[in-house]
Amino acid sequence: MAKFLTNREENYSQWYNDLVIKADLAENSAVRGCMVIKPYGYAIWEKIQAELDRLFKATGHVNAYFPLFIPKSFLSKEAAHVEGFAKECAVVTHYRLKTDETGKGIVVDPSAKLEEELIIRPTSETIIWNSYKNWIQSYRDLPILINQWANVVRWEMRTRLFLRTAEFLWQEGHTAHATREEAIEETEKMINVYASFAENSMALPVIKGVKSENERFAGAIETYAIEALMQDGKALQAGTSHFLGQNFAKAFDVQFTDKSGKLDYVWATSWGVSTRLMGAIIMGHADNNGLVLPPKLAPVQVVIVPIFKNEEQLGMISETAVRIKTELELKGISVKYDNRDNNTPGFKFAEYELKGVPVRLALGPRDLQNKTIEVARRDTLTKETIQLDQITDHVVKLLDDIQTSIYNKALKFRNENTYRADNWDDFIKILDDKGGFIMAHWDGTTETEEKIKEETKATIRCIPIDSPLEDGKCIYSGKPSRRRVLFARSY
Amino acid sequence: MAKFLTNREENYSQWYNDLVIKADLAENSAVRGCMVIKPYGYAIWEKIQAELDRLFKATGHVNAYFPLFIPKSFLSKEAAHVEGFAKECAVVTHYRLKTDETGKGIVVDPSAKLEEELIIRPTSETIIWNSYKNWIQSYRDLPILINQWANVVRWEMRTRLFLRTAEFLWQEGHTAHATREEAIEETEKMINVYASFAENSMALPVIKGVKSENERFAGAIETYAIEALMQDGKALQAGTSHFLGQNFAKAFDVQFTDKSGKLDYVWATSWGVSTRLMGAIIMGHADNNGLVLPPKLAPVQVVIVPIFKNEEQLGMISETAVRIKTELELKGISVKYDNRDNNTPGFKFAEYELKGVPVRLALGPRDLQNKTIEVARRDTLTKETIQLDQITDHVVKLLDDIQTSIYNKALKFRNENTYRADNWDDFIKILDDKGGFIMAHWDGTTETEEKIKEETKATIRCIPIDSPLEDGKCIYSGKPSRRRVLFARSY
Repeated sequence: MAKFLTNREENYSQWYNDLVIKADLAENSAVRGCMVIKPYGYAIWEKIQAELDRLFKATGHVNAYFPLFIPKSFLSKEAAHVEGFAKECAVVTHYRLKTDETGKGIVVDPSAKLEEELIIRPTSETIIWNSYKNWIQSYRDLPILINQWANVVRWEMRTRLFLRTAEFLWQEGHTAHATREEAIEETEKMINVYASFAENSMALPVIKGVKSENERFAGAIETYAIEALMQDGKALQAGTSHFLGQNFAKAFDVQFTDKSGKLDYVWATSWGVSTRLMGAIIMGHADNNGLVLPPKLAPVQVVIVPIFKNEEQLGMISETAVRIKTELELKGISVKYDNRDNNTPGFKFAEYELKGVPVRLALGPRDLQNKTIEVARRDTLTKETIQLDQITDHVVKLLDDIQTSIYNKALKFRNENTYRADNWDDFIKILDDKGGFIMAHWDGTTETEEKIKEETKATIRCIPIDSPLEDGKCIYSGKPSRRRVLFARSY
Repeated sequence: MAKFLTNREENYSQWYNDLVIKADLAENSAVRGCMVIKPYGYAIWEKIQAELDRLFKATGHVNAYFPLFIPKSFLSKEAAHVEGFAKECAVVTHYRLKTDETGKGIVVDPSAKLEEELIIRPTSETIIWNSYKNWIQSYRDLPILINQWANVVRWEMRTRLFLRTAEFLWQEGHTAHATREEAIEETEKMINVYASFAENSMALPVIKGVKSENERFAGAIETYAIEALMQDGKALQAGTSHFLGQNFAKAFDVQFTDKSGKLDYVWATSWGVSTRLMGAIIMGHADNNGLVLPPKLAPVQVVIVPIFKNEEQLGMISETAVRIKTELELKGISVKYDNRDNNTPGFKFAEYELKGVPVRLALGPRDLQNKTIEVARRDTLTKETIQLDQITDHVVKLLDDIQTSIYNKALKFRNENTYRADNWDDFIKILDDKGGFIMAHWDGTTETEEKIKEETKATIRCIPIDSPLEDGKCIYSGKPSRRRVLFARSY
């Protein structure tokens, strides 16, 4: 199987696309820019959803569901917001088809034109704040801590499976608060939830920071983001959390009476991650043999492959294999026993490597005799022989070890590919030679930021939260700067 | 709270609407026909989803995700299918907004017109079979057993919260098989899964049957349905499972090589239930005090209300209440301890009755002294005093008992409201006096069925699977009939 993957070093972009298709994660659909998420890809997404949902509920949030459609006038109410999304809106204008009388087949019925066009939600701040208006009168109605799992549509011109698609799946949190401080606290809390999910579950180190004004969410006062480094040296924004101030409360006239009886506008946040995380998992860990899935998100954590020449051997092996499967499942581990007889063990090995199954156990007649089993780990592609009676404990520990190892490997890669540039020449040289994260001084102006982007395609990924104060000079303008910011080319 | 509900006997329809709103389940949104599912309503839907998803996986299905958009030409490929859905399609015609130069604000950009219009999926057979075409070559690729959790849009003119909305949430299973027999087996398996879910989890008895030709899904050879009786004597179709034959395989040219090397079209099924189930749960069990939730689907199964006059009392009560909460949670029961001090116990009692919480525990200073606790069950509105040291076991049993009791109550109601009519006069009289299910003979023609519908608004809900052969005469035409079918007015 693996030989069908384009070599990553030759053509990274093609390697990625091959991998998504061949590992059966997703494919392009007949609708431009929209993907089909196939069962294996969707199973990973379900694991992502389950863990995030648990984290959201543990931090006091509840789920709800708001309409897919947003009246055009709602989207237009917050000026920066509509400016940000107008260019990529799918618009519903009619609500009926009919059979054409002149024989053209099925056509849109011109008499069924909507009075006001409806936009397919690109994000739901406007339709949600229009509801919150009716839900909030007093400080007693606050906070509202709601999350929604939904599909959204942004009509992107250049799409790539998982990374940028016209329709994607995501969650969007929308919270309402009585004070500015509480809303900022929520914004920060959620970027921390995302960061710990990325690091603990996805095994990907991320840098937390705030976006420059230019890169902020349309309608936000401040956007926090987590940025991960992919293996080709490009950054991937993996999640954002927005402090929206009172912008949407003002646009939808959502006021509340505070404890002192004074009317004020409500404070808002919103935060989201999407199926884009699938892209981060793939590009953060995979290699030329295929996916390398973090054990915590792998739909199948262990596969058992029997090595047999005849039915009798298979029967004997199966007895032991099924017992191991049961024992592992009792420990909460998901196990597949692949006893298909129309594929060779070699074919199966390659297939599970391609699909990134963290641990592969192989069991043959000789193993049974020796009371041993062969254990292969996907991340390092190494094998060892383990005593059968120790296999359950061994696999439990091994899965933890793989989760930690691939995190450490990704962290090492990021550390080795994070540079400091103190002048323009170095900056350009690092970008062109190596890529990666570059910490550099910036004068704080949108003008400089845009010029850097024009000349190098690198953008300010974020101003890292833990970036220390340090006097320096902007690499582009030479003007004074107080701290370094994170530059990179990005997805 | 309950006093704000319209009396069910006075105005059933208003009672239902009041209940959905006041129990905080859902509300109408600013978009015509689209609802907002509020956190409490969505929490019930999440419980429904979790159990159905478990049942689907236990029967070998996996989840996937297909695009929201369907090219108009795809929808048109299966003639009966497009005929059935054309009149209620939301159509996307453009993909960009812009600022109008003449000052009209934000308008649809006429230059961003799609070459082919996209329909928001009313159901996904067409887009899915267009994908299956590429996935299926040989019998080895079969069966495909996929389910999708998604939102769909059918532009209904008269909408009612949960029962009929322009956008709704549902799951749709789409399976592909090598033989007719296997596809029929799957169709039947899934209607059985729905029936057992309705009876075991929703505590609602249902009648399984097949639809008459007239009521079949657009594109199906046979539609199986489960029908439940609501408390106003109307039927509610709670789930359907369709045997699609080779219709979609032919429309999308999906052929496979069978074991003997012969090419044949693939056999299909589809099956779905939606947020409409919420309406069935509400109307199947609720009363004039509010919701009566089946314990298995109640987001909060037990609420503990402290009865106190001062902080000191609350402190003492809380100690015991929290201990009980923990003990119940260890048994897998979801418990809310409502220690708010700005509402009276009476207000809280009414609120949890309205919200249908199955069991309410009340604990005051005298209870602590006597080592007792007051237990109220929502379904019967009865109370009893239980020894504190027996409360955990008591509640575990009580929840089971409530689940069984409300099922039995609904079954008794259905039995008492299921009639046999042997002539037209009786049929009319039962419909107008009492409503309910009517088993009656029908001559098997669409013509008769439509005339009965025209004259009485009653429809054939299904031909029950267990309806015995019995010679008789059609109540309308007097022509011979071999078995009774199920008539009712319906939602």
